[in-house]
Amino acid sequence: MQRVSAPLIDGLQYANWSEKIFREMRQGGVDAVHATITYHENFRETVANIAQWNRWFERHSDLIFQGFTADDIAHARESGRTAIFFGAQNPSCIEDDIGLVAVLHQLGLRFMQLSYNNQSLLATGCYEAEDPGLTRMGCGVISEMNRVGMVIDMSHSAERSTLQAIAHSTRPIAITHANPAQWHPALRNKSDSVLRALSESGGMLGFSLYPHHLAAGSGCTLGDFCTMIARAAERYGVSSLGLGSDLCQDHPDSVVEWMRVGRWTKGIDFGEGSATSAGFPPMPDWFSDNRHFGAIAQGLADVGMNGDEVAAIMGGNWQRFFAESFAPIPHTGAPK
Amino acid sequence: MQRVSAPLIDGLQYANWSEKIFREMRQGGVDAVHATITYHENFRETVANIAQWNRWFERHSDLIFQGFTADDIAHARESGRTAIFFGAQNPSCIEDDIGLVAVLHQLGLRFMQLSYNNQSLLATGCYEAEDPGLTRMGCGVISEMNRVGMVIDMSHSAERSTLQAIAHSTRPIAITHANPAQWHPALRNKSDSVLRALSESGGMLGFSLYPHHLAAGSGCTLGDFCTMIARAAERYGVSSLGLGSDLCQDHPDSVVEWMRVGRWTKGIDFGEGSATSAGFPPMPDWFSDNRHFGAIAQGLADVGMNGDEVAAIMGGNWQRFFAESFAPIPHTGAPK
Repeated sequence: MQRVSAPLIDGLQYANWSEKIFREMRQGGVDAVHATITYHENFRETVANIAQWNRWFERHSDLIFQGFTADDIAHARESGRTAIFFGAQNPSCIEDDIGLVAVLHQLGLRFMQLSYNNQSLLATGCYEAEDPGLTRMGCGVISEMNRVGMVIDMSHSAERSTLQAIAHSTRPIAITHANPAQWHPALRNKSDSVLRALSESGGMLGFSLYPHHLAAGSGCTLGDFCTMIARAAERYGVSSLGLGSDLCQDHPDSVVEWMRVGRWTKGIDFGEGSATSAGFPPMPDWFSDNRHFGAIAQGLADVGMNGDEVAAIMGGNWQRFFAESFAPIPHTGAPK
Repeated sequence: MQRVSAPLIDGLQYANWSEKIFREMRQGGVDAVHATITYHENFRETVANIAQWNRWFERHSDLIFQGFTADDIAHARESGRTAIFFGAQNPSCIEDDIGLVAVLHQLGLRFMQLSYNNQSLLATGCYEAEDPGLTRMGCGVISEMNRVGMVIDMSHSAERSTLQAIAHSTRPIAITHANPAQWHPALRNKSDSVLRALSESGGMLGFSLYPHHLAAGSGCTLGDFCTMIARAAERYGVSSLGLGSDLCQDHPDSVVEWMRVGRWTKGIDFGEGSATSAGFPPMPDWFSDNRHFGAIAQGLADVGMNGDEVAAIMGGNWQRFFAESFAPIPHTGAPK
């Protein structure tokens, strides 16, 4: 598979990061990754995770560096490294403090989900029985995220909250890792209404390779996955589509339990899994680490997408979206 | 006014605590107070507030001590002091951690509101536009509060969430400080449906003296207030009624701003106030501190309540409720 001219960008990963994985990113030619750095961790715990990332950036400076702006994608390609952009899968990191949005943006946080499966202080998650939409705090936090340049990510949020976030946000939002529910009706996948509103507003969908989001699960074929993308491109337009692999490489199953259960229950919640299949599901055999993105590019070509379309989906669209999203809104004068 | 034989118990105060106020409690013959120790403070900040209370308990051990069980009411009367029972007006103190319910109960927290005006991780507040009811975490936290013996307080919660909390809780709950909305239709006052469900389930309502909860506000007369109580007693039964003065004595107006705004917005929220009346409203001239409970007991007698009824409302009902509520559910055997 020849290297496409656009960058290769993954819209979401949460791996058990290691030198091995950073080397695989280089072997796979991955220019930028939106990396989850926090789930249910509070602000202080999230800062501890950032400190751990700073140690990796220092130790593996030949492989990775922290991305702050879209220009860092070009910088990554020039220097043969991978730019790591930070994201949060739940707003636990801002606790109840809207002032922490700007602080975390200064520290490089570029994506934040407004909720993760459950109700948050901001919005509803996709596992709650009821979805009242954005809260009072949620509306304010969206405006603050818009101001500083932090992307609103609704991957794990509920339908009405997502539609309201798209409407309330003055900047395009993202669903970094999910698939169309029409293809596979999982709670985490997204309705046609959501995907239409997302794409019409300039937002981005990252296609997920997490088996619970795939028709046929771990047995999903590359052809089926790429055909699903081609159908979505016809329906929503190529320009709003990218990848968000949701690669959770090398983690013990205790990590998926933390994602699902956090500290909110004394019981167990299996999320998309079940009592008999509680752990991480096995990845499809054609995608298990960062070296395998080339197979997807080839698969998209094989289902009939042209070179420009493949390049857009493999990273060109995320590059444009990063450029539009990560800078603060310019100050337009003194407040009245 | 002669001293009634039942204890005198106030179901909620949040004062700028001082030796002066503790002395006024003694002058007023107040045997026990549910004292708010935290609003939007997180766990660590709440513990700092407890440490401050511990200094007061040590310094003013002739006037006050911390109450843990209903027996401490009798202990207070025997020793001529006031028992202070801790409560939280928002679940910020447990953050996102159900394990902190038992920890805070060990530290003496006996009441916790599931929400304060806004959506919380557990339930909806009375100022949100939509009320979806209890969240997934909210259901689990209620069960845990039931288990350890922490009272669910829905004073600042929304209607549907409150009805669901009453239904979900296996122990009676409280609305420690509010009045019937039929008397004064404030967002914070409670509907007939809520008050019926509350009283029929053995729960308690504490009548509030905070002027925004009073018909005619600061100008409400003692007679009007006591007539409202007498009507409520006819409608809901005397046994579910007490006082919850919501006395916010000696605070600067910056404190009511903290209550309303916390850290959740960059703007200002006036809550029950307004831009032209943003601060604490002046108390009715017949009730401004702990020395004035006797006037209410006399007022209740003056509107025709008999001695037993007055005693029940002034503290007897709270004493029974404390006895029913603060102990853990006995362990009934090994889990299956």
